[in-house]
Amino acid sequence: MEELKGEILWIKGGITAPKGFLAAGVRAGIKSQGLDLGLLYSEAPASAAALFTTNRVKAAPVMVSMEHLQNLSAQAIVVNSGNANACTGEQGKADAHRMAQTVAQELKIAPQEVLVASTGVIGRLLPMEEVVRGIREAVRTLSPEGGEAFAEAIITTDTRPKSVAAEVVIEGQTVRIGGCAKGAGMIAPDLATMLCFLTTDANIEPLLLRKILQEAVDQSFHCLTVDGDTSTNDSVFILANGRSSAPPLEESSLDLKVFRKALTEVCVALARELARDGEGATKLIEVKVEGARNDREARWVAQTIANSNLVKTAIFGKDPNWGRIIAAAGRSGAYFEPERVSLYLGEHLLFRGGVPVPFNLSLVQDYLAQEEILIRLDLGQGMGSAHYFTCDFSYDYVRINAEYHT
Amino acid sequence: MEELKGEILWIKGGITAPKGFLAAGVRAGIKSQGLDLGLLYSEAPASAAALFTTNRVKAAPVMVSMEHLQNLSAQAIVVNSGNANACTGEQGKADAHRMAQTVAQELKIAPQEVLVASTGVIGRLLPMEEVVRGIREAVRTLSPEGGEAFAEAIITTDTRPKSVAAEVVIEGQTVRIGGCAKGAGMIAPDLATMLCFLTTDANIEPLLLRKILQEAVDQSFHCLTVDGDTSTNDSVFILANGRSSAPPLEESSLDLKVFRKALTEVCVALARELARDGEGATKLIEVKVEGARNDREARWVAQTIANSNLVKTAIFGKDPNWGRIIAAAGRSGAYFEPERVSLYLGEHLLFRGGVPVPFNLSLVQDYLAQEEILIRLDLGQGMGSAHYFTCDFSYDYVRINAEYHT
Repeated sequence: MEELKGEILWIKGGITAPKGFLAAGVRAGIKSQGLDLGLLYSEAPASAAALFTTNRVKAAPVMVSMEHLQNLSAQAIVVNSGNANACTGEQGKADAHRMAQTVAQELKIAPQEVLVASTGVIGRLLPMEEVVRGIREAVRTLSPEGGEAFAEAIITTDTRPKSVAAEVVIEGQTVRIGGCAKGAGMIAPDLATMLCFLTTDANIEPLLLRKILQEAVDQSFHCLTVDGDTSTNDSVFILANGRSSAPPLEESSLDLKVFRKALTEVCVALARELARDGEGATKLIEVKVEGARNDREARWVAQTIANSNLVKTAIFGKDPNWGRIIAAAGRSGAYFEPERVSLYLGEHLLFRGGVPVPFNLSLVQDYLAQEEILIRLDLGQGMGSAHYFTCDFSYDYVRINAEYHT
Repeated sequence: MEELKGEILWIKGGITAPKGFLAAGVRAGIKSQGLDLGLLYSEAPASAAALFTTNRVKAAPVMVSMEHLQNLSAQAIVVNSGNANACTGEQGKADAHRMAQTVAQELKIAPQEVLVASTGVIGRLLPMEEVVRGIREAVRTLSPEGGEAFAEAIITTDTRPKSVAAEVVIEGQTVRIGGCAKGAGMIAPDLATMLCFLTTDANIEPLLLRKILQEAVDQSFHCLTVDGDTSTNDSVFILANGRSSAPPLEESSLDLKVFRKALTEVCVALARELARDGEGATKLIEVKVEGARNDREARWVAQTIANSNLVKTAIFGKDPNWGRIIAAAGRSGAYFEPERVSLYLGEHLLFRGGVPVPFNLSLVQDYLAQEEILIRLDLGQGMGSAHYFTCDFSYDYVRINAEYHT
């Protein structure tokens, strides 16, 4: 990635930080307590793009949003927590359509301009009376300060809302990007979901927006795992309403790089927060792999390490267990010669030349007591690199996932 | 698999049940306590075959055994527990060679006739003085009743030894197959290993033996997961010494089917025991997938379900969480239409036609309280089928793997 230092200013406000976006978070009564319905509204129709779960089993709101995105434009997104509206058959799809229709009616826009998302328990029909009442209240309470309430309304068992916003200057004009996300890792109570909502006041064509979104997601959410499970509802949405005074972003312009870097940074910041707040997590773990034959093989290695229960339980136990990391790399499918591998935990070299390196155990254990752990592996084969975000694996993961009853 | 009922008689004696095999298990002093060195000896040179870990990082004994297997024959196998002799460089390789040489010298056979295996902590050199002394004692105590001591000497944190033997009749003559195995799932203390030793008095050419072994392992150990991790030392060995009076087994003969079925059954029985005794396991889980487009896709689905932490924690919690199972199937890469899927826990139908089916919760919870759980998924797409063995995922898995300190 290019270095464009000092370009990004982190600001407050989340998804309502960019110009022309309003949001609300209300209690509709879908969850047993707390805010559970969010609404995002752009004053002008916005270029819209989204990425959805690759799971064969897709929830009703995902199917409806895919349909509504065909015109590459949207003006509102409605989301509920507490019920995923997945595995709900034809009635579920009708309910998701009705959510869009209700929003459209209240905001006086076309239903195709409304995207829909849900997260929570699966296999249960939405309580539509509550949902419709919630939507009406959300419309009444839309506000340019509503980003934080929206971020709160989308969470399920996340321990806190995750919201960021960034500002860059393009040709002397401010462009803002806001984002919020919830729940990495099929979180309880049933199967939950990674949802991310991004907004920007940049002026950008939807197809270019979609391309930039894909790149940003490849560097962030696609490098994120809590337990290797993906859900039926995973979605990342972005709306770009062009309300900034900056000129349109074009494929060939240098400005696009600035914007792309900022969008990637916003997504990486949210992905790190999701990993840090993974089920039962006590630490954020970043895995960096260098020296693979190519980026693809580097990614296999990073992903295999990040998904290894043995590595994650070792980090939870503050154990510098290099053997589990090396063995995970070895089964990743990537080619390497063990004699050329170097493995570091933070700055501490643990393994080189095919054998362990003597290290100061108490210093390394001090390092592992911190809240952010870096596992760095140099395979010594080529120029391929990749990174991955995950969390450690604690008793609480088992508790959260074993004690829920369907 | 063909149905050849009543052909297999389960007997006692493990790897020394077949004619002409002697074994021993002794304490060499490698582990802090208990038997830790096993020796298997065939009175005659035997057809030998083995399958080894596909991990890029292979332990020294794996490399030495691969080398010694080039002549397709072996007469002894030496194995130690407590130290994996992995990531030990040139010295480790010299030590593995010395293990083979010491056995060869004591038994007056060629070193190439000796195979070597190790399991335990990695990155530490073997205490060779203890190992050599142990080998000498093992040679002195070789016995036709030594199968159980051998099975005990190879375990690390397994809670019990796993040993089986079976008898089939081929053209009026008895043929026996014995086997023992240890440690599915990279068991503590560090990274551990799946080791399996099989013996038979059948008369069979090594290349045919290798083919049959591959088929048996594909149906058993390759359908086994505890945590998805594979180790640097995984090995399955078989020796066939031809001491039975049955005629030689030929590629084209019907007898081969009887033998192949028996060998597969022996391997499946051991694989089930390994799953049942997985780290922290309270249950054996069998996943059966039918109706996939082909066997390959069925295997993806079975494997993804069997490796899902979310499914395994739900079964530990006795929760009939069909959503996690369906979602795991959905991300497996296999093609299916959710509307055509049926999901059963034991005899209880939970999901059909894309939506959950009402079920008697307390009956299903009673079922999940048992020690063997069957997850059965019919994808409704074609004739592909596959099965997988795993265990549930408990607090003890985290305890065992987090509390060990390197």
